[in-house]
Amino acid sequence: MINKLYFTSLDEQVQQKAFRAIEEEQRSIGYYTLPDQDITPILSYCDSIPDMIETIAVIGIGGSSLGAKAIYEFVKPLNNLSRKLYFFESTDPINITTLLSKIDLEKTHFLVISKSGNTVETFSIYKYIYSLQNDPSAYTFITDPDSPLEKYANEINASVLHLPDNVGGRFSVLSTVGLVPLALCDIDIQALLNGAQTIKQSFFNDGYLKDTLLKKAVFYAKNHAQFHINCIFAYSETLKYFCEWYVQLWGESLGKHQRNSAFHVGLTPIGLIGPKDQHSFLQLIMEGTRDKSVTFIKIEDFHDNITISDITLPHLETLDILNGLPFSKLINMQCDSVMEALEVQGDIPLDSITIPTVNEHSIGSLIYYYELLTSLVGELIDVNTYDQPGVEAGKIILKKKLRVLKK
Amino acid sequence: MINKLYFTSLDEQVQQKAFRAIEEEQRSIGYYTLPDQDITPILSYCDSIPDMIETIAVIGIGGSSLGAKAIYEFVKPLNNLSRKLYFFESTDPINITTLLSKIDLEKTHFLVISKSGNTVETFSIYKYIYSLQNDPSAYTFITDPDSPLEKYANEINASVLHLPDNVGGRFSVLSTVGLVPLALCDIDIQALLNGAQTIKQSFFNDGYLKDTLLKKAVFYAKNHAQFHINCIFAYSETLKYFCEWYVQLWGESLGKHQRNSAFHVGLTPIGLIGPKDQHSFLQLIMEGTRDKSVTFIKIEDFHDNITISDITLPHLETLDILNGLPFSKLINMQCDSVMEALEVQGDIPLDSITIPTVNEHSIGSLIYYYELLTSLVGELIDVNTYDQPGVEAGKIILKKKLRVLKK
Repeated sequence: MINKLYFTSLDEQVQQKAFRAIEEEQRSIGYYTLPDQDITPILSYCDSIPDMIETIAVIGIGGSSLGAKAIYEFVKPLNNLSRKLYFFESTDPINITTLLSKIDLEKTHFLVISKSGNTVETFSIYKYIYSLQNDPSAYTFITDPDSPLEKYANEINASVLHLPDNVGGRFSVLSTVGLVPLALCDIDIQALLNGAQTIKQSFFNDGYLKDTLLKKAVFYAKNHAQFHINCIFAYSETLKYFCEWYVQLWGESLGKHQRNSAFHVGLTPIGLIGPKDQHSFLQLIMEGTRDKSVTFIKIEDFHDNITISDITLPHLETLDILNGLPFSKLINMQCDSVMEALEVQGDIPLDSITIPTVNEHSIGSLIYYYELLTSLVGELIDVNTYDQPGVEAGKIILKKKLRVLKK
Repeated sequence: MINKLYFTSLDEQVQQKAFRAIEEEQRSIGYYTLPDQDITPILSYCDSIPDMIETIAVIGIGGSSLGAKAIYEFVKPLNNLSRKLYFFESTDPINITTLLSKIDLEKTHFLVISKSGNTVETFSIYKYIYSLQNDPSAYTFITDPDSPLEKYANEINASVLHLPDNVGGRFSVLSTVGLVPLALCDIDIQALLNGAQTIKQSFFNDGYLKDTLLKKAVFYAKNHAQFHINCIFAYSETLKYFCEWYVQLWGESLGKHQRNSAFHVGLTPIGLIGPKDQHSFLQLIMEGTRDKSVTFIKIEDFHDNITISDITLPHLETLDILNGLPFSKLINMQCDSVMEALEVQGDIPLDSITIPTVNEHSIGSLIYYYELLTSLVGELIDVNTYDQPGVEAGKIILKKKLRVLKK
């Protein structure tokens, strides 16, 4: 991965302080060590799932689905994967019915993922599906050790896998939560972890990313009052669900009360896909309020060499300029052109990330890069990066409403 | 449609001025009259497409694809549509290859949509596909009268349909641009226009929406410096692409230099889907900076009555509270609960829109509602709602780069 910043931030002291805080945080927050894990137990578990299973269906929401979906949708188009992966992540009845119409229940293994074991969405869907398929061997439960969900799974003799300690939902993609569904589809989870490992090494062992990540985080934190919208502009449709994962990671980690003040703070994530969103959101970046930073993400080699045909269309001869160009070259030139156009403005903070290609290693590195950046910015804006107290109020109101209904 | 505002804005004079400006604007801006159009020519054209055509493929980007996609994806799950509809809207080679693998070229009719006839994305894709399928009868071109593209189409004896006058891309969904692909899939475009018509009538003929729309627009404009991020929180997966359409409409229309000042202004659109994004973006709304308004969109009747099974899971008895509940009721209760939780905060501007069900009439009304709101806010923040000068710079740089390549 190459990350080039088009802005500067000089504050060596703040950078060093943030680095030390993250070094310290590593001892208690679980996600940092995930790239180092031994995946043998996961691969053994996967071997226990019969070959006749054609579909893996995750029943989970938020941190229990977004990460695996981001990786699956990224690598799927270029890989002949052994199984299909679906995600039941909404209580929308139309969505549930549509997904069920696509799968053969007899050839599907369900992964029910819930840390707490009481997620309303997950268990309303599970109860419905269990009424259609009540064979316990069709289910694996991924949950905290000794949770009520583990007890339930044991009671019905279904498989159980554990979440690692101190890994929150939105930082859990490189744990069992993401690795199990991906490995079941023959996605190379070791390469995924290796990609994450390269970023980890570079950051913690004085590699080139250390300085870049620290500079970027300090810039975002220092200027958060002005540039409080952070756009990713990713030039490939394969990164669409990566953007959704980023939105959760960034928004839920950094939208908080400050630890030591009464202030509400927050950095708003936006995920854009190029070139499509050049025809949508770009106008707002270019001429709208100066409140946005933009990170362009490019794929160096698409491994798909289709080329624009060398034909002249009568009356449209000006388009001959495109003839013979590989699409992979065109899309990256489009990215560069938009970046240059924004750079000329002079007052929009830009940076670019280039990943080598569409494979597990690349997406693993991208994921770990964004996790580290989130941790750094959270530290620098003085919030608890790892909780989400703001989502509880709605859940409590819902439970009250449900109780009233039952009376 | 019911639209309830949870904020007030009292400025009768500004409201009246905005209303008169829109009445005036109607004479020159084409989209206002689209609900009144006679669709007979479109239906006759559709009859000319042979029954053996199984797939319609739009080659177009931005305003040429987002609207039809929003409507198609909304109504598709509940309708047995006669044809499949695909959108080629990216120069990503992986995306093009994946889409082509899904269609049978001999049974596909392509709609090439470009106002100008020189959109880089559209014609690089068209040239590639034309090299695979060079039968002119497989194509219909939708463009401006007398454009070079029309001349080209005439030269190869392909069908041509025209765009109406003075309708910009992002306001064109209810014109040929959206209606033709939708009608070809047997979507009821008259019901779509009727839905839009109800909103038009209510607004221009002193219906209840006039006051609501004016109040909302004035509030958004007056408070644009504080609440400059406008979230839609739509409680159904079917509205996912409607959100993408909204992002283009809102962002590209309202992110501008002011007409009579040197200021950059802009309102940033965010599309969220509930309940999924309760586990993602909600934390940021609840505890982050107070810079966001939220509009909840609910579907009153999903016409899909699946129900949570009435079973007790040992050790998970607290979940019995869900038993017997229809999912459609649950998802709307989730929406109400989050809305109440945000309302308690007291400093987040909220409103709710309820549409009756998942059909053409409902989405037609939602589309016209948002077009009117965009026009009103554009007028009130003093921008040209209908241009997009900011996207030109990148195109010019790209053309320079392409010319250098050719040398």
